[in-house]
Amino acid sequence: MKLQYLEPVASITADCVIFGFDGKKMEVLLIKRGSEPEAGKWALPGGFMERRETLDEAATRVLEQLTGVSNIYIEQFHSFSKIDRHPISRVITVGYYALIDSTNQKLKPSWHASETKWFEINKIPKLGFDHAEIFQAALNTLKKEMAIRPIGFELLPTKFTLTDLQNLYEIILEEDLDRRNFRRKILSMGILTELKEVRKGAHIGATLYKFDKKEYNRLKSQGFSYNL
Amino acid sequence: MKLQYLEPVASITADCVIFGFDGKKMEVLLIKRGSEPEAGKWALPGGFMERRETLDEAATRVLEQLTGVSNIYIEQFHSFSKIDRHPISRVITVGYYALIDSTNQKLKPSWHASETKWFEINKIPKLGFDHAEIFQAALNTLKKEMAIRPIGFELLPTKFTLTDLQNLYEIILEEDLDRRNFRRKILSMGILTELKEVRKGAHIGATLYKFDKKEYNRLKSQGFSYNL
Repeated sequence: MKLQYLEPVASITADCVIFGFDGKKMEVLLIKRGSEPEAGKWALPGGFMERRETLDEAATRVLEQLTGVSNIYIEQFHSFSKIDRHPISRVITVGYYALIDSTNQKLKPSWHASETKWFEINKIPKLGFDHAEIFQAALNTLKKEMAIRPIGFELLPTKFTLTDLQNLYEIILEEDLDRRNFRRKILSMGILTELKEVRKGAHIGATLYKFDKKEYNRLKSQGFSYNL
Repeated sequence: MKLQYLEPVASITADCVIFGFDGKKMEVLLIKRGSEPEAGKWALPGGFMERRETLDEAATRVLEQLTGVSNIYIEQFHSFSKIDRHPISRVITVGYYALIDSTNQKLKPSWHASETKWFEINKIPKLGFDHAEIFQAALNTLKKEMAIRPIGFELLPTKFTLTDLQNLYEIILEEDLDRRNFRRKILSMGILTELKEVRKGAHIGATLYKFDKKEYNRLKSQGFSYNL
């Protein structure tokens, strides 16, 4: 019993649920597995933690190796440990999620991914391992976190309209929001900067805004809570 | 590379941050370690995941073995993986937290704990391993979750006054709350049942309430959000 920690009973992987928004659709980044187990199946990008790295480092590394996506903010959300979740060995996986503006990413599949592709979140294919469960847990976390932290801005271009922001919330939360109420709430928080620019094109005259992260952090340190 | 999963690089433990409330103080349950490493130091109750159990099962088992506390609701919140967090081997730990009414628990230290004790959360001793960091992360999670989920009721007796509930929120959030505003918000959610009983003693005539879990679940399924 005393020396049990010298004989690890499971391997550890990190799996990444990368959410992207292209202005209209919420998507998730999947890879087609190029090697066993689950070769040929779609799955979340993931891989084994190595001896000299932390979980965060493992997640960042495998994501870059599999998809070419780098320098993005990822956050751990849950660890999965069902006995038979891996077909060959006992493997615990730690789930990470990230949010990116998907119009702004070049994908370069490599390593043991034969293909890398964005899928709309309500049209994802059958996934290998227990990745459907991990994806759903990440989506539930995102829905919860969006309401209490200004993370949604990571999915938008730097400059956006209030309609862009509302669309994003409606798509993720899967519900219609009252337009006037939404605008009143987000503007009253005082964390958006109104730009002296309007969006040209379809929505003529729609004012553009930027998220003021500095002001958000200042307000937060004074006890302010984001709540949308 | 292909067979890397056959050679696990780390052991896996579960560590439990058990929060208790005795009506006045928020406390955390610690054990004094009876064996190496960190023998003689205070630490969170924790232990190794075994070959045929999940993380949830490991957390539940080690908690009962170390403290005698059983049949409580615990929830995973974060995994910790710094390279040198364990003095002897590479060990990843998965953090769990739980909330209990501490007046209602009998502690029976056993296994490799020589002592088990409640400590007020702002008076905890120096902890072994990286457990100070794990404790702080659990407390931050609790503060966040309290505002969006009705988990605080787990810390109270079945019947409580609105003053009990407000005290609890003020202690955990470390801020004073406006009494009238707090009452209006909690009562307007419609998830408390007013009992035809009053608390005898100090607060003469204080009405007792119960949390209506069934009604909360019903409202939640209709899109209601807890927000306090």
